[in-house]
Amino acid sequence: VAPATRRRVEAVIRSHGYQKPVRAGRRAPLLELIFHELESEWALEIVRGVERVAGRHQLAVVLTEMQGRRRPGQGWIEGALARRPMGVIAVFSDLSETMRDQLHTRGIPFVVVDPAGEPLHDTPSIGATNWNGGLAATRHLLGLGHRRIGMLAGRPHSLAGSARLHGYRAALQEAGIPVDPALIKPSDFDFAEAVAAAAELLALPDPPTAIFAASDAQALGVLDAARRAGRRVPEDLSLVSFDDTAIASMAAPPLTVVRQPFEEMGRAAVRTLIDLAEGRAAATPRMELTTQLVVRESTAALR
Amino acid sequence: VAPATRRRVEAVIRSHGYQKPVRAGRRAPLLELIFHELESEWALEIVRGVERVAGRHQLAVVLTEMQGRRRPGQGWIEGALARRPMGVIAVFSDLSETMRDQLHTRGIPFVVVDPAGEPLHDTPSIGATNWNGGLAATRHLLGLGHRRIGMLAGRPHSLAGSARLHGYRAALQEAGIPVDPALIKPSDFDFAEAVAAAAELLALPDPPTAIFAASDAQALGVLDAARRAGRRVPEDLSLVSFDDTAIASMAAPPLTVVRQPFEEMGRAAVRTLIDLAEGRAAATPRMELTTQLVVRESTAALR
Repeated sequence: VAPATRRRVEAVIRSHGYQKPVRAGRRAPLLELIFHELESEWALEIVRGVERVAGRHQLAVVLTEMQGRRRPGQGWIEGALARRPMGVIAVFSDLSETMRDQLHTRGIPFVVVDPAGEPLHDTPSIGATNWNGGLAATRHLLGLGHRRIGMLAGRPHSLAGSARLHGYRAALQEAGIPVDPALIKPSDFDFAEAVAAAAELLALPDPPTAIFAASDAQALGVLDAARRAGRRVPEDLSLVSFDDTAIASMAAPPLTVVRQPFEEMGRAAVRTLIDLAEGRAAATPRMELTTQLVVRESTAALR
Repeated sequence: VAPATRRRVEAVIRSHGYQKPVRAGRRAPLLELIFHELESEWALEIVRGVERVAGRHQLAVVLTEMQGRRRPGQGWIEGALARRPMGVIAVFSDLSETMRDQLHTRGIPFVVVDPAGEPLHDTPSIGATNWNGGLAATRHLLGLGHRRIGMLAGRPHSLAGSARLHGYRAALQEAGIPVDPALIKPSDFDFAEAVAAAAELLALPDPPTAIFAASDAQALGVLDAARRAGRRVPEDLSLVSFDDTAIASMAAPPLTVVRQPFEEMGRAAVRTLIDLAEGRAAATPRMELTTQLVVRESTAALR
């Protein structure tokens, strides 16, 4: 069948509300997990969470990495449908509308985990409370007496990064401190760019006494920039990170960080899939799991 | 069938040399990948290597994590056989003899990837040149003029750790420097133990001027201990790490390190499986991929 025809047929089927009844016996005991890229430690934590809940339900996990692409190719959906999975989880990636329709008409549930967060059609999705995390990080620094607080934000197109930045703004506003645009550096969630961005902040005539970095990799970049500029953390510069992958607690000094519950997000995705496969709707289409401030040694009271 | 009976039957079948002929058509286009634990970034790199070669051959990857156990349970082998995989890869883990027999009689090849290295029956295995890596790390420090070189080794039962330690010993011997047992600390490939072990080394009356750590997590532990003891790296203390996961280049300072080719090990495991499935024997039962010294900023000439 030609793709265009398939698409029309699937659309018609869907528009009539037809969906095959869920019959677990017709499914293989496995689920599909697709990742845009297996690059950072948070990917490992999500996989681990998926594995652990799937294992408890005797579900095998078929893992597909798309080498940086945000959508799998046609080869993937054909292979996946032939495997008759009980569900599909996509992490920081998505399926085309046709693929979503193909799953829907076969009654195969689909859940998205998007720690880097994009708003998504009506697919159930699991995220983290990024705005609250940004608020908590900045409130912590304000509570230590800091007033000049730099922010290494994510790229503007990342909703998660934007939420963290707006949490930072909200905390400053609460405290009656005007936002200084010179203190906000949009950069990738990435080490090398963060080294450069932090170096610029530290070279300002009136440099920040604290920095909030939107990822662990960026926070490590700040540590490196501080070392090169001869500033000690936390004596001369306080630093709050975001993510809390294993590297955060192994940094020198161990990082105060807003913890993202990656493993729990993987677990929640599998539980949501199982609920959907058994005919129970998700509580809400989108669920955000709680971020949490973990205070370690990279923050100190303003001297 | 009772496990004991199954075991006897499989053993008899194997002792008569019977093996089902390889008929690719009877296999599903997937392979099984089992991990003892998805804990560190090196696990991610191996998974990525497996994914990329498997993807190129239109093979799906079924990933199973055993939550720290070294062998999968009976449930795993039953599920795996039902999925009719074209092969099985075990990372830092192994199968029972019965399971190996079950795969063998069905003509399903089995390959082990063991970066933490144990010698293994006659199963084809992929490792890294740990001894050469230990030699290269220590020669680098000797070349910079260091004579008091501490070593954070792995636990004695780890063959990979032992190989790195003996590479260190060989380099010292080459240079005519007696090995001082006070400078060798066996610890886990782990951050917290390394912080304590490095602190002990730095508190010696005649402390080392350089340390070779057998993993990135241990090297980060040394950085933390050095910071707490007021020693700068590399000015007061040179440091060579082992692994080169992403954290090594994001440390402050970026770490000189012996690189383990984790992704390549994953790739080689899939290629070996495909060779075996197509009736080509592995070149040798065990293959060790090359480690490589990467010089960054954590080592300097002895002052």
